[in-house]
Amino acid sequence: MNARADAAAGSEAADFYNDLVKHRLIIPGGVQGAFGRGAEFEKVLEAFNALVSRISAGDGAEFCTFPPVIDRRIIERVDYMDNFPDLCGAVCSFFGNEREARALSEKIHAGEPWGGALGMTQVVLNPAACYPLYPTLTGTQAQGGRLVTMLNWVFRHEPSPQPTRMQSFRVREFVRVGNQDDVIAWRDMWLGRGVDLLRSLGLAAQPDVASDPFFGRAGKMLAGNQLEQKLKYEVLVPVNTGDKPTAVCSFNFHQQHFGSTFGILTPDGQAAYTACLGFGLERVVMALFKAHGFKTALWPDAVRQRLWP
Amino acid sequence: MNARADAAAGSEAADFYNDLVKHRLIIPGGVQGAFGRGAEFEKVLEAFNALVSRISAGDGAEFCTFPPVIDRRIIERVDYMDNFPDLCGAVCSFFGNEREARALSEKIHAGEPWGGALGMTQVVLNPAACYPLYPTLTGTQAQGGRLVTMLNWVFRHEPSPQPTRMQSFRVREFVRVGNQDDVIAWRDMWLGRGVDLLRSLGLAAQPDVASDPFFGRAGKMLAGNQLEQKLKYEVLVPVNTGDKPTAVCSFNFHQQHFGSTFGILTPDGQAAYTACLGFGLERVVMALFKAHGFKTALWPDAVRQRLWP
Repeated sequence: MNARADAAAGSEAADFYNDLVKHRLIIPGGVQGAFGRGAEFEKVLEAFNALVSRISAGDGAEFCTFPPVIDRRIIERVDYMDNFPDLCGAVCSFFGNEREARALSEKIHAGEPWGGALGMTQVVLNPAACYPLYPTLTGTQAQGGRLVTMLNWVFRHEPSPQPTRMQSFRVREFVRVGNQDDVIAWRDMWLGRGVDLLRSLGLAAQPDVASDPFFGRAGKMLAGNQLEQKLKYEVLVPVNTGDKPTAVCSFNFHQQHFGSTFGILTPDGQAAYTACLGFGLERVVMALFKAHGFKTALWPDAVRQRLWP
Repeated sequence: MNARADAAAGSEAADFYNDLVKHRLIIPGGVQGAFGRGAEFEKVLEAFNALVSRISAGDGAEFCTFPPVIDRRIIERVDYMDNFPDLCGAVCSFFGNEREARALSEKIHAGEPWGGALGMTQVVLNPAACYPLYPTLTGTQAQGGRLVTMLNWVFRHEPSPQPTRMQSFRVREFVRVGNQDDVIAWRDMWLGRGVDLLRSLGLAAQPDVASDPFFGRAGKMLAGNQLEQKLKYEVLVPVNTGDKPTAVCSFNFHQQHFGSTFGILTPDGQAAYTACLGFGLERVVMALFKAHGFKTALWPDAVRQRLWP
C-alpha cells in the first residue's frame, strides 16, 4: 500500500476501535493492546471456542490450560530471544530489603523510572500458546502420537492502536505430535477445516503461506526460508480494513525443532515432529462484529444458529 | 504451629500436590506456582464459576474481563509498590538494536543473567482482580452506584511448593461502588452468601477477619490497622491440611481509597466507597478435590447436582 492508503487504513482501524468501545465490546485500559472485554464480546468468544470444540470433538484431543506466565527456561531453550527479543515479556520483581524498598517508593512517587530496582523472576509471559506444553511431553510418545488442545493467554510486546494487534490475547490451540506424515496430514486437514469453519460464520476467509516477524536483518532470511519451505500458513479475514486482511488462525509446522529440544521421541526413538494451529479468539470475535454489525441480536440467523445451536 | 507441625503440614501439602499431578488435575510447569490445569480441573472450575453466576444472577452485575497485564500507572497510583513490592510482576522487554540483540543472545546461550538487557514496558501483571476496573469508572456514578463482575488472571510473585499458593491464578470478582452504607450492606450480604455457597458444596467454610501481606516492618502496622478496622474478611476452607485452612474467598472494603484516587464520584460529588470480593477459583477447585476425592464421578450426588444441574 502507498502512504495515503496506509493512512486511510489506519483511520478505518481507528474507527473500528471506537465503534467497539462505543458498543462496550471493548473497554479502554490506558495502554494500547491491553483493553478489557465486555460481556457481549465474551459471549461471542465463548460461543466460538465451544464451536471449535464441537467440530473437533471426534478427534479425541486432550484439553488443558496453562497460566499466562511460564518457566523462563522455555523461551531460553527454544531460542525465542534470538528470534523475537522485541516481543518478549520477562517478569521482573523486587528482591530488596526495607531500605531499598523505601528508595523504590521514593522513585515512583517522584515519577522517576524504577525498573532498575527490579530483578528477573523465573517466569516470563507466554509468547506462544503451545510453548508450555512441550517440556511436559519429554519422553517416548505412544504409537500414533498425541493430540492436545489448550486455551491460553499469550503476550506480545507490540503496543498498537489497531484493535486486532493486542499485547495480550487468547489463543485456542491444537498441537499434534507424531511422525512427519501424520503431522503434515493433520495440519492440512485443519487448514481446510479452519477455512470452512470461518466461512460458515459468514467470514471471507482465505488461506495463505506466511512468515513470523523475526527480528533484524538475519530475521529477514529466516522469514524467507520459512515462506519458501511453507512452514507457516495463516487464514486471513478482513477486520480492520478491506484491503489488508488480518490473520485469525495460524498453522506452524516445527519439523523436529521441539522434538529434539525437549527430547520428545517417537516409539522408534527419533525426535518427534510437531505442528500446531491456533485461533486468535479476540480476532475472530472482532471479525464477526465487523462482518455482521455490533449487535449480535441482529446477526444473520445462520450465524447465530451455528454459534448458539 | 510448632516446627514439627509445620513440617508435617508441609509434607501433607506436598502429598496433595503429588496427588493432583498423579490424577492429571495439574501439570507441573517447571517453576513453582505456574503449573498447567488438566481437563477435569477446568471442568470443575467452569462449573463453580457458572454456579456463582447463577446464584448472583438477580443482582444485575455487569460482566467484563481484563487481560493478565494492565497499565503500569495503575499500580503506581494505588501505591502497590509501597505495600507489596516483593509480589509485583513488572513486564520488561528488549528495546535495543541488532548489535545489542546479538550480545543478549550470547548471554543467554552462555547461561548468564540477561535481565540487564531489558527495559520496563508500560504494562505490569495484574496483582488484584479489581484494579483494572477503577480507572474505567472515573466520573460521576449513577444513583444507586454500580456493580461489576469479572473473571481475571492475577499474578503474585510468591513461588511456593504449596499447590494453593500460585504465582498465577484466576479470580471471579465482584466490585460494588456506591455510598458507604450500600457498599457495606452488600459486602455483608455476600459474606453470608459466600459461606453458604461453599458449605452447600460440602466444604467446611468459616469466615474470619484477615489482613494483607504488607511488606516490611511498616507493613505490620498496616496489617494491624486493617484487622482492627475489619477492612478485610476471608472465607477459609481446609485444603492443604486440616490445621491451617486456606482462604478461598476474600472481601476487601477500600473505604474511599479508589474513589478518591481515580475520581469515582457519587451523585452528590463525594468520592465513592468501594468494596470487592473474589473467589480464588483454583483454590475452590482444589478444596473440592480435597474434600470429595480426585474423581468427580465419585463425588456426592448433592455436590454434583449443584455444580452440574
